[in-house]
Amino acid sequence: MEKYTKSMGKLIQALRKMPGLGPKSAERIAFHILRLPHSEAKAMAYSILKVKESIKFCKLCGNLSEDDACSICGNPKRSKDIICIVQQPTDIVSIEKSSAFQGVYHVLGGALSPLDGVGPENLRIRELQARVKVSRPKEVIIATDSDSEGETTALYLARLLKKEKLKVTRIAYGLPMGSNLEYADQVTVAKALQGRVPV
Amino acid sequence: MEKYTKSMGKLIQALRKMPGLGPKSAERIAFHILRLPHSEAKAMAYSILKVKESIKFCKLCGNLSEDDACSICGNPKRSKDIICIVQQPTDIVSIEKSSAFQGVYHVLGGALSPLDGVGPENLRIRELQARVKVSRPKEVIIATDSDSEGETTALYLARLLKKEKLKVTRIAYGLPMGSNLEYADQVTVAKALQGRVPV
Repeated sequence: MEKYTKSMGKLIQALRKMPGLGPKSAERIAFHILRLPHSEAKAMAYSILKVKESIKFCKLCGNLSEDDACSICGNPKRSKDIICIVQQPTDIVSIEKSSAFQGVYHVLGGALSPLDGVGPENLRIRELQARVKVSRPKEVIIATDSDSEGETTALYLARLLKKEKLKVTRIAYGLPMGSNLEYADQVTVAKALQGRVPV
Repeated sequence: MEKYTKSMGKLIQALRKMPGLGPKSAERIAFHILRLPHSEAKAMAYSILKVKESIKFCKLCGNLSEDDACSICGNPKRSKDIICIVQQPTDIVSIEKSSAFQGVYHVLGGALSPLDGVGPENLRIRELQARVKVSRPKEVIIATDSDSEGETTALYLARLLKKEKLKVTRIAYGLPMGSNLEYADQVTVAKALQGRVPV
């Protein structure tokens, strides 16, 4: 006995593949879509297609873009003298939300992970080398993740970029804001102590 | 400063309107869609449109259907002698999942709620009256919710249907399966005591 009509079943199946959606939430969203006005459901379907069609990658930094240059590389107010290296376009979103960075980015497209077969040639590292040779930035900030792949990538990049006589920095690791020392893990506490700054 | 490209922003906005999706999960799903193969993204957009286009309501019971009669009303194995009244098509899904009911349904489309301006004329009650006059079922089960609107609706329907000399029952309320008496609320415990059955 089918519980849903065929088209509902298909929609629920498609939704269940999304990250964080279990069977219950997929069902709930499908019924919500069913109750939406025609125009809104159409707009939603269209925006899915539009994203796939219109999004390319910025030729310079590798960020998501609808043109050849992304909105950050194309913004004359952003300083081209400081480049922040990140793993993914989503990392740019996080940094932009903090409003703490006014330079430009370089997206690697991942992190070094020999076990998964990801070497330097699979990341946008050659593009990075070519880019810094031309633009000679005053500083390169490495903002890869703080897991083992991200740390390995940071070390590798730091060595590479220092050869080019560039100022290379790494974002700080320590206690997250609003947290308690009591609940922090040992590695974070150690990093926070090592990274202490004069006040 | 825009954090996303225009089309990503639109998709995230559309996703945020879905029940249970906050800004973070909407963002995560949008980036997931971006990484999907073209064919899968298309299939998903298409299934949203398809649901809106192809789903009608069963003329007899009010359930979701892609034809004039839904798959339950159209199934010769389902007993037409027993009608279960529910508020929404989603309630049918819940009951079908339990596999404990082999009759047919009647969807009201909501519950009586004078404060929200929902009276008997806004629900599919006239259709119900006409239906039972013709089909003379052996039993009518009222399976509205156990909140105040659902209870009011149940009382109203019970009175109405008893006038037609029908056997009217209400689904049981009590402790949910797998729960502890210790954590049950007072009203549920009271209902469970009132509804005790010989073993």
